[in-house]
Amino acid sequence: MSQGKYIESFDSHTKRFLSAMRGQFRDQDSYDEMLYSNDEILYEIFEVKRPEVAGELLHGISLIHPGKVGDEYFMTKGHFHTELETAELYYCLQGNGMMLMETPEGEWAVEVMAEGNVVYVPPRWAHRSINTNPAGDLVLFFVYPANAGHDYGSIEFQGFRKVVIERDGQPVVEDNPRWLPPESR
Amino acid sequence: MSQGKYIESFDSHTKRFLSAMRGQFRDQDSYDEMLYSNDEILYEIFEVKRPEVAGELLHGISLIHPGKVGDEYFMTKGHFHTELETAELYYCLQGNGMMLMETPEGEWAVEVMAEGNVVYVPPRWAHRSINTNPAGDLVLFFVYPANAGHDYGSIEFQGFRKVVIERDGQPVVEDNPRWLPPESR
Repeated sequence: MSQGKYIESFDSHTKRFLSAMRGQFRDQDSYDEMLYSNDEILYEIFEVKRPEVAGELLHGISLIHPGKVGDEYFMTKGHFHTELETAELYYCLQGNGMMLMETPEGEWAVEVMAEGNVVYVPPRWAHRSINTNPAGDLVLFFVYPANAGHDYGSIEFQGFRKVVIERDGQPVVEDNPRWLPPESR
Repeated sequence: MSQGKYIESFDSHTKRFLSAMRGQFRDQDSYDEMLYSNDEILYEIFEVKRPEVAGELLHGISLIHPGKVGDEYFMTKGHFHTELETAELYYCLQGNGMMLMETPEGEWAVEVMAEGNVVYVPPRWAHRSINTNPAGDLVLFFVYPANAGHDYGSIEFQGFRKVVIERDGQPVVEDNPRWLPPESR
């Protein structure tokens, strides 16, 4: 993997700290405890600047660092696209993870990611990347239509239906007890 | 590189033979001679099927095999998008090559490709992938808006302004004597 050299050519670099993820992890006590000791970086995004219009493609690399909050793996905030009918594509460059997906109606799906895998997130599906490898970064190359826009607020409010947590050293998918189903939003 | 495993999950596999590239290489005599002895495969494309509408992303892998016609490297046909205002993105997974680009007005550009490089082809630019490594395949992961469409005919008719040929073992960019400039089309 030689993303290091390439990353220098990106226009923006976003660092997402633990403090920006309040309320997103299932185990709130572990979250508070971790945050008290160190507001660490959970993931980073490197992106190329392009005009945000249909026909252009925004693209970049995300690095999700290894770690857990309680037994829940480090993950991205997750988002719908503001322009709901737009897809997103991920090529896994390094590591192991899962892509957790959900429609506004509450359908859910999960795809396993390993080096060389492509995950296609169809239009309408919210998506969150999760690093299930405790030993190293999950490195993803992502591409999406430049007019897509990001809606982070819906997921912050309602959560994902599922969480991915570690049980006996393995990632398993479980229900999120704090998920708000469509009828109670 | 582990594209082998991934390629099994594509929906279509296109093989482009030397015979499909008549008139595209500069050295017509070498072309005829090669074709007479063996109609070999110059490149292959593996693609995922998605609805061909705005918001979706078509994607796949292209393998450009090593070789030359005369002193000109194996290359793809090259194309404009029918929907001209759409981009295309390439992530180089393996090998070495060049992306040759041109606008309808005759501006040209070339980008070098090596493992880990991204080449962004902005809207309006025709593009052709060229394998400059005599020792192995050029392997590219590509993504483009699903409503883009392919216009191969313009390039077949007018050619690219430039060619990439081997001089003393190195790729160099030279004029294409058979290029038709915009005013003579």
